[in-house]
Amino acid sequence: MLASLLDKIRIVLVNTTHPGNIGATARAMKTMGLERLYLVGPQGFPSAEATARAAGADDILARAVVCDDLDEALEGARLILGTSGRARSISWPELDPRQAVAEAANTTGDVAILFGRERYGLTNEELQRCHYLVNIPTNPEYRSLNIASAVQVLAYEIRVGHTPDGKGPKEAPGDPLAAAEDMERFYEHLEETLLQTGFLSPDQPRVTMMKRLRRLFNRAKPDTTEINILRGILSTIQRPKNRR
Amino acid sequence: MLASLLDKIRIVLVNTTHPGNIGATARAMKTMGLERLYLVGPQGFPSAEATARAAGADDILARAVVCDDLDEALEGARLILGTSGRARSISWPELDPRQAVAEAANTTGDVAILFGRERYGLTNEELQRCHYLVNIPTNPEYRSLNIASAVQVLAYEIRVGHTPDGKGPKEAPGDPLAAAEDMERFYEHLEETLLQTGFLSPDQPRVTMMKRLRRLFNRAKPDTTEINILRGILSTIQRPKNRR
Repeated sequence: MLASLLDKIRIVLVNTTHPGNIGATARAMKTMGLERLYLVGPQGFPSAEATARAAGADDILARAVVCDDLDEALEGARLILGTSGRARSISWPELDPRQAVAEAANTTGDVAILFGRERYGLTNEELQRCHYLVNIPTNPEYRSLNIASAVQVLAYEIRVGHTPDGKGPKEAPGDPLAAAEDMERFYEHLEETLLQTGFLSPDQPRVTMMKRLRRLFNRAKPDTTEINILRGILSTIQRPKNRR
Repeated sequence: MLASLLDKIRIVLVNTTHPGNIGATARAMKTMGLERLYLVGPQGFPSAEATARAAGADDILARAVVCDDLDEALEGARLILGTSGRARSISWPELDPRQAVAEAANTTGDVAILFGRERYGLTNEELQRCHYLVNIPTNPEYRSLNIASAVQVLAYEIRVGHTPDGKGPKEAPGDPLAAAEDMERFYEHLEETLLQTGFLSPDQPRVTMMKRLRRLFNRAKPDTTEINILRGILSTIQRPKNRR
């Protein structure tokens, strides 16, 4: 049980600027038994500084998956959590770290936890890929949590919440959640269909509406069967012969 | 309650070797609202490195109390907790971080939490000054938790355990959830539309499919605006003039 929770977590650092933070993240992960590090467009990696700060956790660095973009890092992930250190203009479902770990434990398949840039975190577009934002409680007058420290807190909660004492939440039965890339294909298909039916207009901005729909469907966390059903509905709507 | 718990905690670093760790500790403290740092015989303090790693938390460093010995740092403290990263030869009452915070909250007066040297932690003599050892759960194969990371974990628990609304699972604020009757109207509308488009057939049982779709959309808990959007989409699909 513990092993499987630890195994399914991907820590995804997006555009990290300071190699020291990558090393410190590897160390924070390993102390809590996490091993899967994904780096999206890191600056200066590999580097001696990262290795130094990793202390004995350089095996995590050596096995880190360096990705060109977020899609690559999220491929196959079922539950996507985005950490956010500050008040956001977008409103998105939020969990505290403990709730997020419970959610992860109940997920069949891979869970990606995203950590943003040192200066400005995750972009709104990146946050909209997430099922939930994870809000680490901080001092409202000083929210400047270092990235590796944020990883440490989440990794600690992962370890604590599921130390094998029989208390951990059970794996949910049922189909696995739809993979990140399947969710993206669904949203593309949805937008295309809404344009065809005239619900959306090609001449008008559609970002806000698509964001609302993403928030709604992400909240439902469709499983693989459900996303196929939704795609099937969209295909039927598009097929003129089936229309009256 | 929160204010008083935060106020009564002293973070005591014993013989810290790397100034960077002192700075990172100050930052970790301040992000969680802790302010009282005691340094017992620190090496190289104050230093530019400590200030750099403190980021905006240099006010914590400026007010840090530098002590010659542990007695000085513990003066007036009522509850003394010692963090310990590894199995110890002395057996001593142990708490996990969450239990330690509960103990601190129940204490009238100052609480000191001790963090030992980078290389070998606290001596047995120092540990014996403590009421309890605090054992942060770690990967048994790699217990090398950085000092500032250990402070971060404890400081986080202090903040979480005593944030007044820490329990509230927060949906992002927004519109009220759709009323039960509006959900029913949506499902009727959905079924009607799926029949029209040919996704569902009038000759075949539809109970199972509609049940799946109910489960999916109920899980999303649409609010009043969202259910109106979904109804609007269905209406557009039904309108023949909008179809290609």
